[in-house]
Amino acid sequence: MTTQTTIKVNFYDTDAMAVVHHANYIRWFEIGRVEFLREAGITLDELMNDGYVFPITEVSCKYLLPGKFDDVLVIETIPTALTQAKMAFDYKIIRSADGAVLVEGHTQNVFTNKKTGKITRLPEKYYTKLQAALK
Amino acid sequence: MTTQTTIKVNFYDTDAMAVVHHANYIRWFEIGRVEFLREAGITLDELMNDGYVFPITEVSCKYLLPGKFDDVLVIETIPTALTQAKMAFDYKIIRSADGAVLVEGHTQNVFTNKKTGKITRLPEKYYTKLQAALK
Amino acid sequence: MTTQTTIKVNFYDTDAMAVVHHANYIRWFEIGRVEFLREAGITLDELMNDGYVFPITEVSCKYLLPGKFDDVLVIETIPTALTQAKMAFDYKIIRSADGAVLVEGHTQNVFTNKKTGKITRLPEKYYTKLQAALK
Amino acid sequence: MTTQTTIKVNFYDTDAMAVVHHANYIRWFEIGRVEFLREAGITLDELMNDGYVFPITEVSCKYLLPGKFDDVLVIETIPTALTQAKMAFDYKIIRSADGAVLVEGHTQNVFTNKKTGKITRLPEKYYTKLQAALK
Repeated sequence: MTTQTTIKVNFYDTDAMAVVHHANYIRWFEIGRVEFLREAGITLDELMNDGYVFPITEVSCKYLLPGKFDDVLVIETIPTALTQAKMAFDYKIIRSADGAVLVEGHTQNVFTNKKTGKITRLPEKYYTKLQAALK
Repeated sequence: MTTQTTIKVNFYDTDAMAVVHHANYIRWFEIGRVEFLREAGITLDELMNDGYVFPITEVSCKYLLPGKFDDVLVIETIPTALTQAKMAFDYKIIRSADGAVLVEGHTQNVFTNKKTGKITRLPEKYYTKLQAALK
Repeated sequence: MTTQTTIKVNFYDTDAMAVVHHANYIRWFEIGRVEFLREAGITLDELMNDGYVFPITEVSCKYLLPGKFDDVLVIETIPTALTQAKMAFDYKIIRSADGAVLVEGHTQNVFTNKKTGKITRLPEKYYTKLQAALK
Repeated sequence: MTTQTTIKVNFYDTDAMAVVHHANYIRWFEIGRVEFLREAGITLDELMNDGYVFPITEVSCKYLLPGKFDDVLVIETIPTALTQAKMAFDYKIIRSADGAVLVEGHTQNVFTNKKTGKITRLPEKYYTKLQAALK
Protein backbone atom coordinates (compact mmCIF):
# COMPACT_ATOMS: atom_id res chain seq x y z
CA MET A 1 0.00 0.00 0.00
CA THR A 2 1.28 3.42 -1.03
CA THR A 3 -0.69 6.54 -0.19
CA GLN A 4 -0.90 9.76 -2.09
CA THR A 5 -1.90 13.00 -0.41
CA THR A 6 -2.32 16.25 -2.28
CA ILE A 7 -1.38 19.62 -0.78
CA LYS A 8 -0.90 23.11 -2.13
CA VAL A 9 2.10 25.32 -1.39
CA ASN A 10 0.98 28.32 0.63
CA PHE A 11 2.59 31.73 0.50
CA TYR A 12 3.75 31.33 4.10
CA ASP A 13 5.65 28.18 3.08
CA THR A 14 8.05 30.22 0.95
CA ASP A 15 11.23 31.99 2.03
CA ALA A 16 13.22 34.96 0.75
CA MET A 17 14.66 32.82 -2.06
CA ALA A 18 11.03 32.66 -3.32
CA VAL A 19 10.94 28.87 -3.00
CA VAL A 20 9.48 26.52 -0.39
CA HIS A 21 11.63 26.60 2.74
CA HIS A 22 13.30 23.21 3.02
CA ALA A 23 12.07 22.44 6.54
CA ASN A 24 8.50 22.34 5.25
CA TYR A 25 9.07 19.11 3.36
CA ILE A 26 9.90 17.44 6.67
CA ARG A 27 6.53 18.61 7.96
CA TRP A 28 4.83 17.33 4.83
CA PHE A 29 6.33 13.87 5.29
CA GLU A 30 4.32 13.86 8.52
CA ILE A 31 1.14 14.60 6.58
CA GLY A 32 1.90 11.61 4.36
CA ARG A 33 2.66 9.34 7.33
CA VAL A 34 -0.53 10.29 9.16
CA GLU A 35 -2.56 9.70 6.01
CA PHE A 36 -0.92 6.31 5.48
CA LEU A 37 -1.84 5.25 9.01
CA ARG A 38 -5.38 6.50 8.56
CA GLU A 39 -5.78 4.47 5.39
CA ALA A 40 -4.40 1.50 7.30
CA GLY A 41 -7.18 2.04 9.83
CA ILE A 42 -5.13 3.71 12.58
CA THR A 43 -5.48 7.25 13.85
CA LEU A 44 -2.86 9.06 15.91
CA ASP A 45 -5.50 10.05 18.45
CA GLU A 46 -6.44 6.41 18.97
CA LEU A 47 -2.80 5.43 19.45
CA MET A 48 -2.17 8.30 21.85
CA ASN A 49 -5.35 7.59 23.83
CA ASP A 50 -4.12 4.01 24.17
CA GLY A 51 -0.89 5.30 25.69
CA TYR A 52 1.41 5.09 22.69
CA VAL A 53 3.51 7.81 21.21
CA PHE A 54 5.83 7.25 18.28
CA PRO A 55 8.66 9.77 18.28
CA ILE A 56 10.64 10.16 15.11
CA THR A 57 14.19 8.83 15.36
CA GLU A 58 15.54 9.55 11.89
CA VAL A 59 14.75 11.75 8.96
CA SER A 60 16.60 12.34 5.73
CA CYS A 61 15.74 14.28 2.60
CA LYS A 62 17.27 14.93 -0.80
CA TYR A 63 16.19 18.14 -2.47
CA LEU A 64 16.06 17.79 -6.25
CA LEU A 65 13.96 20.72 -7.44
CA PRO A 66 12.50 23.75 -5.66
CA GLY A 67 8.80 23.99 -4.89
CA LYS A 68 7.10 27.30 -5.57
CA PHE A 69 4.10 29.15 -4.19
CA ASP A 70 0.81 27.74 -5.49
CA ASP A 71 2.35 24.46 -6.67
CA VAL A 72 0.06 21.49 -6.19
CA LEU A 73 2.16 18.71 -4.68
CA VAL A 74 1.53 15.03 -4.16
CA ILE A 75 3.09 13.38 -1.12
CA GLU A 76 3.72 9.73 -1.92
CA THR A 77 4.25 7.61 1.19
CA ILE A 78 5.77 4.16 0.84
CA PRO A 79 6.21 1.90 3.88
CA THR A 80 9.62 0.22 4.05
CA ALA A 81 9.32 -1.39 7.49
CA LEU A 82 6.32 -1.72 9.77
CA THR A 83 7.13 -3.85 12.79
CA GLN A 84 5.88 -3.90 16.37
CA ALA A 85 8.89 -1.78 17.27
CA LYS A 86 9.13 0.79 14.53
CA MET A 87 7.72 2.28 11.34
CA ALA A 88 9.89 3.37 8.42
CA PHE A 89 8.70 5.14 5.30
CA ASP A 90 10.09 6.48 2.07
CA TYR A 91 8.55 9.59 0.54
CA LYS A 92 8.44 11.33 -2.77
CA ILE A 93 6.99 14.78 -3.11
CA ILE A 94 5.89 15.26 -6.67
CA ARG A 95 4.83 18.40 -8.54
CA SER A 96 1.39 17.62 -9.84
CA ALA A 97 1.67 19.78 -12.96
CA ASP A 98 4.42 17.75 -14.60
CA GLY A 99 5.19 14.79 -12.35
CA ALA A 100 8.63 16.11 -11.43
CA VAL A 101 9.98 14.76 -8.14
CA LEU A 102 10.94 17.71 -5.94
CA VAL A 103 12.24 15.79 -2.93
CA GLU A 104 12.83 12.23 -1.79
CA GLY A 105 12.98 11.33 1.85
CA HIS A 106 12.94 8.73 4.55
CA THR A 107 11.80 8.64 8.16
CA GLN A 108 11.82 6.19 11.03
CA ASN A 109 9.61 6.28 14.13
CA VAL A 110 9.65 4.02 17.16
CA PHE A 111 6.75 3.16 19.43
CA THR A 112 7.12 4.29 23.01
CA ASN A 113 5.03 4.20 26.13
CA LYS A 114 3.53 7.64 26.67
CA LYS A 115 4.04 7.57 30.44
CA THR A 116 7.47 5.99 30.77
CA GLY A 117 8.92 7.27 27.49
CA LYS A 118 10.46 3.85 26.98
CA ILE A 119 10.45 1.93 23.73
CA THR A 120 7.63 -0.55 23.66
CA ARG A 121 6.01 -3.02 21.28
CA LEU A 122 2.83 -2.17 19.47
CA PRO A 123 -0.08 -4.46 20.47
CA GLU A 124 -1.52 -6.95 17.99
CA LYS A 125 -4.64 -4.95 17.21
CA TYR A 126 -2.54 -2.22 15.61
CA TYR A 127 0.17 -4.47 14.27
CA THR A 128 -2.32 -6.55 12.31
CA LYS A 129 -3.55 -3.44 10.55
CA LEU A 130 -0.04 -2.31 9.72
CA GLN A 131 0.85 -5.72 8.33
CA ALA A 132 -2.25 -5.73 6.18
CA ALA A 133 -1.22 -2.34 4.83
CA LEU A 134 2.18 -3.64 3.82
CA LYS A 135 0.71 -6.15 1.43
CA MET B 1 7.17 46.45 34.74
CA THR B 2 7.93 46.26 31.03
CA THR B 3 10.14 43.52 29.65
CA GLN B 4 12.42 43.62 26.66
CA THR B 5 13.46 40.45 24.87
CA THR B 6 15.91 40.44 21.99
CA ILE B 7 15.59 38.07 19.05
CA LYS B 8 17.15 37.83 15.61
CA VAL B 9 15.22 37.31 12.38
CA ASN B 10 16.11 33.93 10.90
CA PHE B 11 16.12 33.12 7.22
CA TYR B 12 13.21 30.75 7.74
CA ASP B 13 11.15 33.63 9.14
CA THR B 14 11.09 35.35 5.75
CA ASP B 15 8.68 34.81 2.86
CA ALA B 16 8.85 35.27 -0.91
CA MET B 17 8.43 39.05 -0.47
CA ALA B 18 11.84 38.87 1.26
CA VAL B 19 10.41 40.22 4.52
CA VAL B 20 9.36 38.59 7.78
CA HIS B 21 6.11 36.70 7.26
CA HIS B 22 3.45 38.55 9.26
CA ALA B 23 2.33 35.53 11.30
CA ASN B 24 5.74 35.37 12.95
CA TYR B 25 5.14 38.54 14.93
CA ILE B 26 2.17 36.83 16.60
CA ARG B 27 4.56 34.06 17.65
CA TRP B 28 7.04 36.61 18.91
CA PHE B 29 4.41 38.26 21.11
CA GLU B 30 4.30 34.89 22.86
CA ILE B 31 8.05 35.03 23.47
CA GLY B 32 7.56 38.44 25.09
CA ARG B 33 4.63 37.25 27.19
CA VAL B 34 6.49 34.19 28.46
CA GLU B 35 9.49 36.34 29.33
CA PHE B 36 7.27 38.83 31.16
CA LEU B 37 5.80 36.06 33.29
CA ARG B 38 9.24 34.64 34.00
CA GLU B 39 10.47 38.03 35.19
CA ALA B 40 7.36 38.22 37.36
CA GLY B 41 8.40 34.89 38.89
CA ILE B 42 5.97 32.62 37.03
CA THR B 43 6.84 29.89 34.55
CA LEU B 44 4.38 28.31 32.14
CA ASP B 45 5.48 24.85 33.24
CA GLU B 46 4.65 25.67 36.86
CA LEU B 47 1.22 26.99 35.89
CA MET B 48 0.49 23.97 33.70
CA ASN B 49 1.68 21.53 36.35
CA ASP B 50 -0.72 23.24 38.75
CA GLY B 51 -3.56 22.55 36.34
CA TYR B 52 -3.88 25.95 34.68
CA VAL B 53 -3.76 26.72 31.02
CA PHE B 54 -4.27 30.19 29.65
CA PRO B 55 -5.57 30.11 26.08
CA ILE B 56 -5.33 33.26 24.05
CA THR B 57 -8.70 34.89 23.37
CA GLU B 58 -7.70 37.92 21.33
CA VAL B 59 -4.78 39.12 19.28
CA SER B 60 -4.35 42.19 17.14
CA CYS B 61 -1.39 43.64 15.32
CA LYS B 62 -0.59 46.72 13.25
CA TYR B 63 2.25 46.32 10.79
CA LEU B 64 4.18 49.55 10.32
CA LEU B 65 7.48 48.52 8.73
CA PRO B 66 8.78 45.21 7.39
CA GLY B 67 11.34 43.16 9.27
CA LYS B 68 14.20 41.69 7.26
CA PHE B 69 16.47 38.67 7.57
CA ASP B 70 19.19 39.22 10.17
CA ASP B 71 17.45 42.17 11.84
CA VAL B 72 17.93 42.25 15.58
CA LEU B 73 14.53 42.95 17.12
CA VAL B 74 13.44 43.90 20.60
CA ILE B 75 10.07 42.64 21.80
CA GLU B 76 8.70 45.11 24.34
CA THR B 77 5.94 43.64 26.49
CA ILE B 78 3.73 45.98 28.48
CA PRO B 79 1.00 44.60 30.75
CA THR B 80 -2.33 46.39 30.44
CA ALA B 81 -4.46 44.15 32.66
CA LEU B 82 -3.42 41.34 34.99
CA THR B 83 -6.35 40.07 36.98
CA GLN B 84 -7.26 36.67 38.43
CA ALA B 85 -9.33 36.06 35.31
CA LYS B 86 -7.16 37.31 32.47
CA MET B 87 -3.90 38.79 31.28
CA ALA B 88 -3.72 41.50 28.63
CA PHE B 89 -0.52 42.89 27.11
CA ASP B 90 0.55 45.49 24.59
CA TYR B 91 3.63 44.84 22.49
CA LYS B 92 6.04 46.80 20.39
CA ILE B 93 8.57 45.06 18.21
CA ILE B 94 11.44 47.41 17.60
CA ARG B 95 14.34 47.21 15.16
CA SER B 96 17.40 47.42 17.29
CA ALA B 97 19.58 49.15 14.70
CA ASP B 98 17.57 52.38 14.62
CA GLY B 99 14.76 52.07 17.15
CA ALA B 100 12.08 51.95 14.47
CA VAL B 101 8.83 50.31 15.59
CA LEU B 102 7.99 47.52 13.11
CA VAL B 103 4.74 46.33 14.68
CA GLU B 104 2.43 47.14 17.58
CA GLY B 105 0.13 44.57 19.02
CA HIS B 106 -2.18 43.44 21.78
CA THR B 107 -3.18 40.08 23.21
CA GLN B 108 -5.56 38.78 25.84
CA ASN B 109 -5.41 35.41 27.60
CA VAL B 110 -7.81 33.89 30.10
CA PHE B 111 -7.03 31.37 32.81
CA THR B 112 -8.76 28.05 32.46
CA ASN B 113 -8.77 24.76 34.27
CA LYS B 114 -6.66 22.28 32.32
CA LYS B 115 -9.06 19.38 32.93
CA THR B 116 -12.44 21.00 32.55
CA GLY B 117 -11.41 23.65 30.02
CA LYS B 118 -13.57 26.11 31.95
CA ILE B 119 -12.57 29.64 32.82
CA THR B 120 -11.20 29.80 36.33
CA ARG B 121 -9.59 32.28 38.70
CA LEU B 122 -5.86 32.29 39.25
CA PRO B 123 -4.93 31.43 42.87
CA GLU B 124 -3.42 34.05 45.14
CA LYS B 125 0.13 32.73 44.94
CA TYR B 126 0.28 33.61 41.25
CA TYR B 127 -1.93 36.65 41.40
CA THR B 128 0.27 38.30 44.01
CA LYS B 129 3.25 37.98 41.70
CA LEU B 130 1.35 39.40 38.76
CA GLN B 131 0.15 42.35 40.82
CA ALA B 132 3.68 43.06 41.98
CA ALA B 133 4.80 43.04 38.35
CA LEU B 134 2.18 45.63 37.42
CA LYS B 135 3.65 48.22 39.78
CA MET C 1 -18.76 36.83 -3.06
CA THR C 2 -17.64 34.79 -0.09
CA THR C 3 -15.15 31.97 -0.50
CA GLN C 4 -14.83 28.79 1.50
CA THR C 5 -11.59 26.86 1.64
CA THR C 6 -11.24 23.56 3.43
CA ILE C 7 -8.08 22.57 5.30
CA LYS C 8 -7.18 19.86 7.79
CA VAL C 9 -5.30 20.46 11.06
CA ASN C 10 -1.90 18.78 10.89
CA PHE C 11 -0.06 17.36 13.85
CA TYR C 12 2.65 19.99 13.44
CA ASP C 13 -0.02 22.71 13.83
CA THR C 14 -0.58 21.72 17.46
CA ASP C 15 1.31 22.87 20.55
CA ALA C 16 1.97 21.44 23.99
CA MET C 17 -1.59 22.36 25.10
CA ALA C 18 -2.70 19.79 22.47
CA VAL C 19 -4.59 22.41 20.50
CA VAL C 20 -3.83 24.38 17.34
CA HIS C 21 -1.22 27.02 18.10
CA HIS C 22 -2.95 30.39 17.78
CA ALA C 23 -0.50 31.86 15.23
CA ASN C 24 -1.60 29.27 12.68
CA TYR C 25 -5.01 30.85 12.26
CA ILE C 26 -3.29 34.02 11.07
CA ARG C 27 -1.54 31.90 8.42
CA TRP C 28 -4.82 30.31 7.47
CA PHE C 29 -6.45 33.70 6.91
CA GLU C 30 -3.80 34.07 4.20
CA ILE C 31 -4.96 30.83 2.58
CA GLY C 32 -8.50 32.21 2.51
CA ARG C 33 -7.39 35.57 1.09
CA VAL C 34 -5.33 33.96 -1.67
CA GLU C 35 -8.25 31.72 -2.58
CA PHE C 36 -10.63 34.67 -2.65
CA LEU C 37 -8.36 36.52 -5.08
CA ARG C 38 -8.00 33.44 -7.24
CA GLU C 39 -11.77 33.07 -7.45
CA ALA C 40 -11.93 36.75 -8.37
CA GLY C 41 -9.52 35.97 -11.21
CA ILE C 42 -6.33 37.37 -9.66
CA THR C 43 -3.24 35.38 -8.71
CA LEU C 44 -0.51 36.66 -6.39
CA ASP C 45 2.14 35.68 -8.92
CA GLU C 46 0.48 37.81 -11.58
CA LEU C 47 0.26 40.79 -9.22
CA MET C 48 3.90 40.37 -8.14
CA ASN C 49 5.11 39.96 -11.73
CA ASP C 50 3.32 43.21 -12.53
CA GLY C 51 5.29 44.92 -9.78
CA TYR C 52 2.71 44.98 -6.99
CA VAL C 53 3.06 43.65 -3.50
CA PHE C 54 0.35 43.97 -0.91
CA PRO C 55 1.79 43.91 2.58
CA ILE C 56 -0.57 43.29 5.43
CA THR C 57 -1.15 46.33 7.62
CA GLU C 58 -3.58 45.00 10.22
CA VAL C 59 -4.69 41.68 11.57
CA SER C 60 -7.01 40.83 14.43
CA CYS C 61 -8.44 37.58 15.67
CA LYS C 62 -10.86 36.40 18.35
CA TYR C 63 -10.37 32.86 19.55
CA LEU C 64 -13.66 31.23 20.52
CA LEU C 65 -12.95 27.48 20.58
CA PRO C 66 -9.74 25.48 20.22
CA GLY C 67 -8.95 23.55 17.05
CA LYS C 68 -7.60 20.05 17.45
CA PHE C 69 -5.40 17.72 15.43
CA ASP C 70 -7.27 16.18 12.49
CA ASP C 71 -10.13 18.68 12.58
CA VAL C 72 -11.44 19.58 9.17
CA LEU C 73 -11.81 23.35 9.06
CA VAL C 74 -13.50 25.70 6.64
CA ILE C 75 -11.96 29.14 6.14
CA GLU C 76 -14.72 31.55 5.19
CA THR C 77 -13.40 34.74 3.59
CA ILE C 78 -15.69 37.75 3.33
CA PRO C 79 -14.50 40.95 1.64
CA THR C 80 -15.36 44.12 3.57
CA ALA C 81 -13.48 46.66 1.45
CA LEU C 82 -11.78 46.23 -1.92
CA THR C 83 -10.56 49.56 -3.27
CA GLN C 84 -7.65 50.53 -5.50
CA ALA C 85 -5.69 51.30 -2.35
CA LYS C 86 -6.47 48.40 -0.01
CA MET C 87 -8.19 45.08 0.58
CA ALA C 88 -9.95 44.25 3.84
CA PHE C 89 -11.48 40.90 4.71
CA ASP C 90 -13.37 39.27 7.55
CA TYR C 91 -12.81 35.60 8.25
CA LYS C 92 -14.52 32.81 10.08
CA ILE C 93 -12.80 29.51 10.65
CA ILE C 94 -15.44 26.87 11.15
CA ARG C 95 -15.16 23.26 12.37
CA SER C 96 -16.65 21.21 9.61
CA ALA C 97 -17.95 18.45 11.89
CA ASP C 98 -20.48 20.62 13.73
CA GLY C 99 -20.34 24.09 12.20
CA ALA C 100 -18.84 25.62 15.35
CA VAL C 101 -16.95 28.87 14.74
CA LEU C 102 -13.44 28.49 16.19
CA VAL C 103 -12.10 31.93 15.35
CA GLU C 104 -13.21 35.19 13.78
CA GLY C 105 -10.75 37.60 12.28
CA HIS C 106 -10.04 40.59 10.13
CA THR C 107 -7.13 41.69 7.96
CA GLN C 108 -6.20 44.69 5.89
CA ASN C 109 -3.62 44.84 3.10
CA VAL C 110 -2.44 47.82 1.06
CA PHE C 111 -1.08 47.79 -2.46
CA THR C 112 2.49 48.95 -2.82
CA ASN C 113 5.01 49.28 -5.61
CA LYS C 114 7.43 46.37 -5.38
CA LYS C 115 10.48 48.50 -6.23
CA THR C 116 9.81 51.68 -4.29
CA GLY C 117 7.90 50.10 -1.43
CA LYS C 118 5.48 53.04 -1.61
CA ILE C 119 1.72 52.77 -1.42
CA THR C 120 0.22 52.77 -4.89
CA ARG C 121 -3.13 52.36 -6.59
CA LEU C 122 -4.11 49.10 -8.20
CA PRO C 123 -4.60 49.43 -11.99
CA GLU C 124 -8.06 49.11 -13.50
CA LYS C 125 -7.55 45.60 -14.86
CA TYR C 126 -7.27 44.24 -11.33
CA TYR C 127 -9.66 46.66 -9.71
CA THR C 128 -12.47 45.71 -12.10
CA LYS C 129 -12.10 42.08 -11.06
CA LEU C 130 -12.15 42.96 -7.38
CA GLN C 131 -15.25 45.09 -7.81
CA ALA C 132 -17.01 42.28 -9.65
CA ALA C 133 -16.15 39.97 -6.76
CA LEU C 134 -17.76 42.33 -4.26
CA LYS C 135 -21.15 42.04 -5.88
CA MET D 1 36.39 26.33 13.28
CA THR D 2 33.25 25.13 15.03
CA THR D 3 30.53 27.59 16.00
CA GLN D 4 28.13 27.42 18.89
CA THR D 5 24.85 29.29 18.84
CA THR D 6 22.48 29.35 21.78
CA ILE D 7 18.71 29.36 21.37
CA LYS D 8 15.76 28.78 23.67
CA VAL D 9 12.82 26.49 22.91
CA ASN D 10 9.67 28.58 22.52
CA PHE D 11 6.20 27.38 23.36
CA TYR D 12 5.24 27.54 19.69
CA ASP D 13 8.07 25.09 18.91
CA THR D 14 6.28 22.32 20.79
CA ASP D 15 3.62 19.92 19.53
CA ALA D 16 0.81 17.93 21.12
CA MET D 17 3.34 15.36 22.42
CA ALA D 18 4.65 18.27 24.56
CA VAL D 19 8.08 18.09 22.94
CA VAL D 20 9.81 20.11 20.25
CA HIS D 21 8.32 19.25 16.86
CA HIS D 22 11.02 17.45 14.89
CA ALA D 23 10.95 19.76 11.88
CA ASN D 24 12.20 22.62 14.05
CA TYR D 25 15.65 21.09 14.41
CA ILE D 26 16.03 21.31 10.63
CA ARG D 27 15.28 25.02 10.93
CA TRP D 28 17.79 25.34 13.74
CA PHE D 29 20.54 23.76 11.65
CA GLU D 30 20.03 26.78 9.39
CA ILE D 31 20.60 29.12 12.32
CA GLY D 32 23.89 27.32 12.99
CA ARG D 33 24.95 27.44 9.33
CA VAL D 34 24.19 31.15 9.01
CA GLU D 35 26.13 31.84 12.19
CA PHE D 36 29.09 29.78 10.96
CA LEU D 37 29.22 31.78 7.74
CA ARG D 38 28.96 35.04 9.64
CA GLU D 39 31.89 34.06 11.85
CA ALA D 40 33.77 33.15 8.69
CA GLY D 41 33.11 36.70 7.48
CA ILE D 42 30.31 35.95 5.02
CA THR D 43 26.70 37.10 5.26
CA LEU D 44 23.84 35.61 3.28
CA ASP D 45 22.74 39.07 2.18
CA GLU D 46 26.17 39.75 0.71
CA LEU D 47 26.14 36.43 -1.15
CA MET D 48 22.61 37.00 -2.45
CA ASN D 49 23.37 40.58 -3.50
CA ASP D 50 26.33 39.19 -5.45
CA GLY D 51 23.97 36.86 -7.28
CA TYR D 52 24.57 33.63 -5.42
CA VAL D 53 22.02 31.44 -3.75
CA PHE D 54 22.91 28.18 -2.06
CA PRO D 55 19.95 25.82 -2.01
CA ILE D 56 20.09 22.90 0.35
CA THR D 57 20.48 19.55 -1.41
CA GLU D 58 20.56 17.13 1.51
CA VAL D 59 19.56 17.04 5.14
CA SER D 60 19.58 14.23 7.64
CA CYS D 61 18.91 14.12 11.35
CA LYS D 62 19.00 11.56 14.14
CA TYR D 63 16.76 12.27 17.08
CA LEU D 64 18.22 11.02 20.34
CA LEU D 65 16.32 12.85 23.07
CA PRO D 66 13.30 15.16 23.01
CA GLY D 67 13.65 18.89 23.52
CA LYS D 68 11.16 20.57 25.83
CA PHE D 69 9.67 24.02 26.16
CA ASP D 70 12.09 26.47 27.78
CA ASP D 71 15.17 24.30 27.21
CA VAL D 72 18.28 26.27 26.42
CA LEU D 73 19.94 24.58 23.45
CA VAL D 74 23.35 24.97 21.87
CA ILE D 75 23.61 24.43 18.12
CA GLU D 76 27.11 23.20 17.34
CA THR D 77 28.04 23.60 13.67
CA ILE D 78 31.03 21.69 12.30
CA PRO D 79 32.10 22.13 8.66
CA THR D 80 32.88 18.87 6.90
CA ALA D 81 33.40 20.19 3.37
CA LEU D 82 33.67 23.75 2.13
CA THR D 83 34.58 23.87 -1.53
CA GLN D 84 33.83 26.31 -4.35
CA ALA D 85 30.94 24.05 -5.31
CA LYS D 86 29.32 23.11 -2.02
CA MET D 87 29.18 23.44 1.76
CA ALA D 88 28.58 20.50 4.07
CA PHE D 89 28.12 20.67 7.81
CA ASP D 90 27.57 18.37 10.74
CA TYR D 91 25.47 19.58 13.66
CA LYS D 92 24.86 18.67 17.24
CA ILE D 93 22.07 20.25 19.21
CA ILE D 94 22.92 20.06 22.86
CA ARG D 95 20.80 20.69 25.95
CA SER D 96 22.69 23.33 27.84
CA ALA D 97 21.54 22.20 31.30
CA ASP D 98 23.33 18.84 31.20
CA GLY D 99 25.24 18.64 27.94
CA ALA D 100 22.97 15.90 26.56
CA VAL D 101 22.95 15.67 22.77
CA LEU D 102 19.33 15.87 21.57
CA VAL D 103 19.94 15.54 17.85
CA GLU D 104 22.77 15.04 15.39
CA GLY D 105 22.48 16.09 11.79
CA HIS D 106 24.10 16.84 8.49
CA THR D 107 23.33 19.18 5.60
CA GLN D 108 24.75 19.93 2.19
CA ASN D 109 24.23 23.08 0.13
CA VAL D 110 25.42 23.90 -3.37
CA PHE D 111 26.17 27.31 -4.80
CA THR D 112 23.99 28.37 -7.68
CA ASN D 113 23.59 31.42 -9.84
CA LYS D 114 20.55 33.37 -8.64
CA LYS D 115 19.37 34.23 -12.17
CA THR D 116 20.01 31.00 -14.06
CA GLY D 117 19.47 28.64 -11.14
CA LYS D 118 22.48 26.66 -12.36
CA ILE D 119 25.21 25.30 -10.17
CA THR D 120 28.18 27.63 -10.12
CA ARG D 121 31.53 28.02 -8.39
CA LEU D 122 31.96 30.44 -5.54
CA PRO D 123 34.43 33.24 -6.37
CA GLU D 124 37.80 33.44 -4.63
CA LYS D 125 36.85 36.26 -2.28
CA TYR D 126 34.33 34.02 -0.54
CA TYR D 127 36.23 30.80 -0.96
CA THR D 128 39.32 32.19 0.76
CA LYS D 129 37.20 33.04 3.80
CA LEU D 130 35.64 29.58 3.88
CA GLN D 131 39.02 27.90 3.63
CA ALA D 132 40.37 30.02 6.46
CA ALA D 133 37.38 28.93 8.55
CA LEU D 134 38.13 25.28 7.97
CA LYS D 135 41.53 25.52 9.66
